[in-house]
Amino acid sequence: MIVVVCLNPALDVTHHMPAVDWAGVNRPSAVRARPGGKGLNVARTLHALRVDVLVVGLAGGITGTGVEAALGEEGIPAALTRITGETRRTFTVVDGRGGGAASFHEPGPGIGAGEFAGFRAQYGRALKGSAAVVLSGSLPPGLPAGTYAALIDLATAKHVPVVLDTHGEALRRGAAAGPAIVKPNLAELEALAGRRLSTAAGAEGLLAATGDGRWRARPPAVAAGNATGAGDAVAAALAHGLVLGRPWDERLRHAAALGAATAASPAAGEFSHADYASALSGVAVHREEAR
Amino acid sequence: MIVVVCLNPALDVTHHMPAVDWAGVNRPSAVRARPGGKGLNVARTLHALRVDVLVVGLAGGITGTGVEAALGEEGIPAALTRITGETRRTFTVVDGRGGGAASFHEPGPGIGAGEFAGFRAQYGRALKGSAAVVLSGSLPPGLPAGTYAALIDLATAKHVPVVLDTHGEALRRGAAAGPAIVKPNLAELEALAGRRLSTAAGAEGLLAATGDGRWRARPPAVAAGNATGAGDAVAAALAHGLVLGRPWDERLRHAAALGAATAASPAAGEFSHADYASALSGVAVHREEAR
Repeated sequence: MIVVVCLNPALDVTHHMPAVDWAGVNRPSAVRARPGGKGLNVARTLHALRVDVLVVGLAGGITGTGVEAALGEEGIPAALTRITGETRRTFTVVDGRGGGAASFHEPGPGIGAGEFAGFRAQYGRALKGSAAVVLSGSLPPGLPAGTYAALIDLATAKHVPVVLDTHGEALRRGAAAGPAIVKPNLAELEALAGRRLSTAAGAEGLLAATGDGRWRARPPAVAAGNATGAGDAVAAALAHGLVLGRPWDERLRHAAALGAATAASPAAGEFSHADYASALSGVAVHREEAR
Repeated sequence: MIVVVCLNPALDVTHHMPAVDWAGVNRPSAVRARPGGKGLNVARTLHALRVDVLVVGLAGGITGTGVEAALGEEGIPAALTRITGETRRTFTVVDGRGGGAASFHEPGPGIGAGEFAGFRAQYGRALKGSAAVVLSGSLPPGLPAGTYAALIDLATAKHVPVVLDTHGEALRRGAAAGPAIVKPNLAELEALAGRRLSTAAGAEGLLAATGDGRWRARPPAVAAGNATGAGDAVAAALAHGLVLGRPWDERLRHAAALGAATAASPAAGEFSHADYASALSGVAVHREEAR
């Protein structure tokens, strides 16, 4: 089982409008609401890969109840610790004229010390039966930047490997705690390094710096779909490859293919198994010389 | 007790942004979510006037649960009939730069025939103890335009007077069923008449065509606040005046004052009792000569 930690889940609401009036009253032609946030995207991807997952994290208020109910409808197992604050929403308005979109992300609830202790206990129980942990997404406001580092320490003490995908200080401190895999995107890595990290081969594809050398995977060209969630699909594939004990070249091949298949899907964070299979054969993986 | 019918309530979510990026990701500085829709605004106003109210209507899904929970927190009694569809949300983004706003109103759930029968039974029970009924707001998609007319017939059969505030065909057919008071705004009345209804005195204020002659009320000038809900405050005051047996000039005076106090409040659909009291003394009411 892979445990996916979602400390700041969201209810993602999307309104589709044929033509948005940015200064008036709009009546959306299509409305979609479903659980979101990076961690839940990872869990959804693993679930689609028929991997045993358990979502742990924090949920509160009516929106938290909505997130739990919708996960139940999707068949994704979850054991969320209840909090008194209200789980956040994101609103995205998609303009049918140009395909542009505006998003509005609520910050998320404050977390009481007792509430976080309750989550830690739940997390400790979940670690017992788990083959890996994914820590993904932002921390809700008020939780210290060392939160992921502390959760990595707990997992490490139980010999459970961790995949970390976050940004900023939580990434820096989490990476220092020694997770098995850290998955920043280029922008997150540059923000952490404080400098531009240009690569000779451009920004596309995946680069893995591992104990077994540096590997690069270049995905095939894919039809333009919806890139949202592609990075989360990569994180899911890396965790899956870790649990299966795939060698690094195969992990990267699957991660690049799953990311490409997800980016090709019109629905954020979803993919078709046919696209995944076809992308797998189109990924080019090679080992880079040490520099 | 005044029964307020809310067939299409909403959860109103408002995001305040210092400066909106209409093509990117925004992180709102303030988020507010509360029950809305015209009927709930009327109920909230009556509740603030310390009038016994009971909200009846339809609520479904997580959003419906949210509306019920929030009404409970506000102390507004409600007996909503559960439906399988999801109660709608409205989403408003307020741009701090110019005070402009964009709104996105979900259409609301479909209503099953059995669900509406359940509501009718609930409505029938509520009528027994009620001094008046307010029918306010849009009908959810799929309910026939004669729905309010049928509810007026049921109330009339029990000698309960009705205040009707809606628009379009539901207004036309509802008005034909003979409610005690019909409260369209000028735009709704013009849409119904199919022609422009210019009044010599301009568009401001209230005009009442009653069995006791035509009355006009002109509110005092008020500080600019938030006009949303001012019309619902007028409907609430008219229902209250009806129940108290106030003569028409006093009904109109209170309605104009409450509308003005609500428009002066920064929060949609709210008012301060001090503003209401001061506006009362500033309203000019006079009887118009028959033409």
